[in-house]
Amino acid sequence: MADQATGRRRSGGRAGAAARRGAAVIEQMPFSPPINRDRPVEPLSAEGIAAIHDGAMRILEEIGVVFLNPEALAILREAGCRVEGETVRMGRDFVMEMVAKAPSQFTLTPRNPAHRITVGGDTLLFGNVSSPPSYWDMEIGRKVSGTREKCADLMKLTQYFNCIHFAGGYPVEPVDIHASVRHLDVLFDKLTLCDKVMHAYSLGKERVEDVMEMVRIAGGLTEEEFQATPRMYTNINSTSPLKHDFPMIDGCLRLIRRGQAVVVTPFTLAGAMAPVTMAGAVAQSLAEALCAIALFQYVRPGTPCVIGTFTSNVDMKSGAPAFGTPEYMRATQMTGQMARFYGLPLRSSGVCAANVPDGQAMWETSNSLWAAVQSGTNMVYHAAGWLEGGLIASPEKFIMDCEVLQQIQRYMQPEIWDTGPDEIALDAIRSVGNSGHFFGTQHTQDRYTTAFYQPFLSDWRNFEGWEAAGAIWTPERAHLLYKQILDAFEPPPMDAAIRDELTAFVARRKAEGGAPTDF
Amino acid sequence: MADQATGRRRSGGRAGAAARRGAAVIEQMPFSPPINRDRPVEPLSAEGIAAIHDGAMRILEEIGVVFLNPEALAILREAGCRVEGETVRMGRDFVMEMVAKAPSQFTLTPRNPAHRITVGGDTLLFGNVSSPPSYWDMEIGRKVSGTREKCADLMKLTQYFNCIHFAGGYPVEPVDIHASVRHLDVLFDKLTLCDKVMHAYSLGKERVEDVMEMVRIAGGLTEEEFQATPRMYTNINSTSPLKHDFPMIDGCLRLIRRGQAVVVTPFTLAGAMAPVTMAGAVAQSLAEALCAIALFQYVRPGTPCVIGTFTSNVDMKSGAPAFGTPEYMRATQMTGQMARFYGLPLRSSGVCAANVPDGQAMWETSNSLWAAVQSGTNMVYHAAGWLEGGLIASPEKFIMDCEVLQQIQRYMQPEIWDTGPDEIALDAIRSVGNSGHFFGTQHTQDRYTTAFYQPFLSDWRNFEGWEAAGAIWTPERAHLLYKQILDAFEPPPMDAAIRDELTAFVARRKAEGGAPTDF
Repeated sequence: MADQATGRRRSGGRAGAAARRGAAVIEQMPFSPPINRDRPVEPLSAEGIAAIHDGAMRILEEIGVVFLNPEALAILREAGCRVEGETVRMGRDFVMEMVAKAPSQFTLTPRNPAHRITVGGDTLLFGNVSSPPSYWDMEIGRKVSGTREKCADLMKLTQYFNCIHFAGGYPVEPVDIHASVRHLDVLFDKLTLCDKVMHAYSLGKERVEDVMEMVRIAGGLTEEEFQATPRMYTNINSTSPLKHDFPMIDGCLRLIRRGQAVVVTPFTLAGAMAPVTMAGAVAQSLAEALCAIALFQYVRPGTPCVIGTFTSNVDMKSGAPAFGTPEYMRATQMTGQMARFYGLPLRSSGVCAANVPDGQAMWETSNSLWAAVQSGTNMVYHAAGWLEGGLIASPEKFIMDCEVLQQIQRYMQPEIWDTGPDEIALDAIRSVGNSGHFFGTQHTQDRYTTAFYQPFLSDWRNFEGWEAAGAIWTPERAHLLYKQILDAFEPPPMDAAIRDELTAFVARRKAEGGAPTDF
Repeated sequence: MADQATGRRRSGGRAGAAARRGAAVIEQMPFSPPINRDRPVEPLSAEGIAAIHDGAMRILEEIGVVFLNPEALAILREAGCRVEGETVRMGRDFVMEMVAKAPSQFTLTPRNPAHRITVGGDTLLFGNVSSPPSYWDMEIGRKVSGTREKCADLMKLTQYFNCIHFAGGYPVEPVDIHASVRHLDVLFDKLTLCDKVMHAYSLGKERVEDVMEMVRIAGGLTEEEFQATPRMYTNINSTSPLKHDFPMIDGCLRLIRRGQAVVVTPFTLAGAMAPVTMAGAVAQSLAEALCAIALFQYVRPGTPCVIGTFTSNVDMKSGAPAFGTPEYMRATQMTGQMARFYGLPLRSSGVCAANVPDGQAMWETSNSLWAAVQSGTNMVYHAAGWLEGGLIASPEKFIMDCEVLQQIQRYMQPEIWDTGPDEIALDAIRSVGNSGHFFGTQHTQDRYTTAFYQPFLSDWRNFEGWEAAGAIWTPERAHLLYKQILDAFEPPPMDAAIRDELTAFVARRKAEGGAPTDF
């Protein structure tokens, strides 16, 4: 298992670097996606679910959704939908018949099969922040444009942390690479630095096909093997309100025809691109997602699809999006109820509006992460590293978020609430009696190394101990850890022939001009 | 209504100060304790509940609890319990018969009846941090001993914030006042600065009786009126493992005999004063609390009692207590299930191990606050202002916590998930169609001022806007707000005759020597 956290010594490198790399920077929990056995929080009554479903269906039946994609229009016309110009209206019977074909859970198998993940059911998966144009860290101290170097650094964190289960989009947009070849360089970096499940942007056929091809090559797979089971996914957003653009739908169609998975996530900001009422914003979000999922199921019945929610509210003073708000939490829970109603896996996010990794960042992110837990979310996008409403990626925030994610992983372990005789511990209680303490008892000694969550970032010393160690606030501690992790990072193993093939593919596609940039 | 937040102008004071005070420093939600309609998270199965109950009962039947209080021993002997020396063993039939007499909910009525609270049922109440010996703020920048002035400042916050529903113990211990008269000075400050429900420490008969007397005087009540309905409460901790000390039990007996409420909160740190296993720590905590509640119900059937949980884990590396951990969250949820099993209101806490109001402080506190929500907690002690495992009170943390508490209050408002036709908003969606936005629609215009939570501390501007405003991190913003709130603070009205009577009481009791300090 190519696990960075085991601390096993490896050969090669200068002695000093090898020694640094040999010791694990932190002790972390193993790669083991949490199983969420908590009963979801369900604000909607059965009538509420029916009302939102009816709203979503009436949007699709009466108002319709624009598909700026001629192929989709032709397919949906063939399927019996009412197509006028680019507006598609579809009946609820068709929608429900198609959506019923989608699996309630499926697997994604990356090049390292030890990092295979199940999407759906009770499984809770975390992915890195995706697509911020800007980067901020404690050392730079200001907002700067993303670069290939910073993107690679954040990919190393994605690989390093066992609590990150899949790779999202670019953890920061490397704007120092020309857009025509950016996907080639970044996917080369991603695939050589990380062996977890990969993502492709649906931004034109070249990008999608190139990324699929690179994932196939990196996995050492024939086309038949690549298609045999989902290896990767794309995530698309609708253009709210009620519109799907060309490349997003095109990319999904390309992925599903090669057996890969799609996530459909409308970005319905209540009061801006959706109604100011959460039920309306959720109904619109569902309508936008379900019509695309219906299309994909018609094209390839049983294709793995995830329904996403990105319903939040704006700050009505400024119009700026807000995240991790009470309304965001409830919308996520409501969408969770609807996802279960439709039998689809759910994606939500780990998000905040804060600009720096401070207290606000963590209460907003905590709100969104607990909403993910409460809603029965299966995939948490942006679970580590997100700041400024998704406009900034921050390594300190990434590491702070991983501390919270690992705590959620531990929170889900049922041994915490075991109630067998050994856990009730009557004999230990009897032996200590009415004075003394449990530190030295055999019952404690037998269990103390594994009984409790051990943080890697939280400082649990008292004030004096913390002060003596430099009085370092959390983001500074995270920054130091970030540097240590980068310093000790070793990429997962990759066969030299595969690496050569990837290199050659990138070179050939660059020579061909990469992807057009006029989309 | 004596509400600081309404922003009504008042007469008096210098013109400048009056103008500052006249304008509300922040807009906040009204005093309106949240009603928690979320289904609780229940890790324990029915068998798990039975196992923990059986464990607690066997502790009481077989091992027994030490009561270092002769009066309690005599009462329990009379009640038929087996008393050997200071160890009391009681059968489960007796415990359950007594606990069944406790009301599942009751009210507490402070001197301002607009601040009456219901304890139990679905109500979720928040109180200020209690009893830290030390104080920290951004300006001082180091840990200092608590003073009367800082204690009063934090009491002003308790009064100011509508999301704080009751006063806990001293928000910081004013060690500059001699212990013999400390309770007199602090209660005078508390009662004149705050008109919310008051607390008495159970630390000797003089303190308890003095505080009850001062609460009676401040309310303008006869003794008969004071006793007619609960006005205040005490909170006691057992001396884990399995011991109740003299003054705590004595104070409770004094309060219940005058019709007041008690909260019994064992502090069972798993691995230190309780078994390393959470089920064992919870069972021990329940045993310690239930035997005291059984005593109080025997003495005065139907007396209002709350069962508290303070079960957390230690850091097994250092032995230091940790808070807001995964184990803490599950223990709180487990105790919530047990509190419902026993039909008792539940108290938990808003807690963290962090030493400064940074990201760690807020993820740990968020974990504990969401555990309070998930467990069906009724009273959240330490909900604002707690740092360093309760050893430090911080005004910045107080204000940051209030931002989170207000969001929980908003989160509980069921209008967020209304699903009537106006909320599904099909007409608005139809009117906007497949392009444009909802900012200008009538549906939005009619609702935008109240549709979403409005923060008073969170900064939702983008990075550039935040930077232009000084790039102020959350604790610094909280510090500025703290100063503004203190500057504008006006105490709630108090009848001059009552104030004089309180002053005279304090003077008389000081002349008598206050309370002995040899406890």
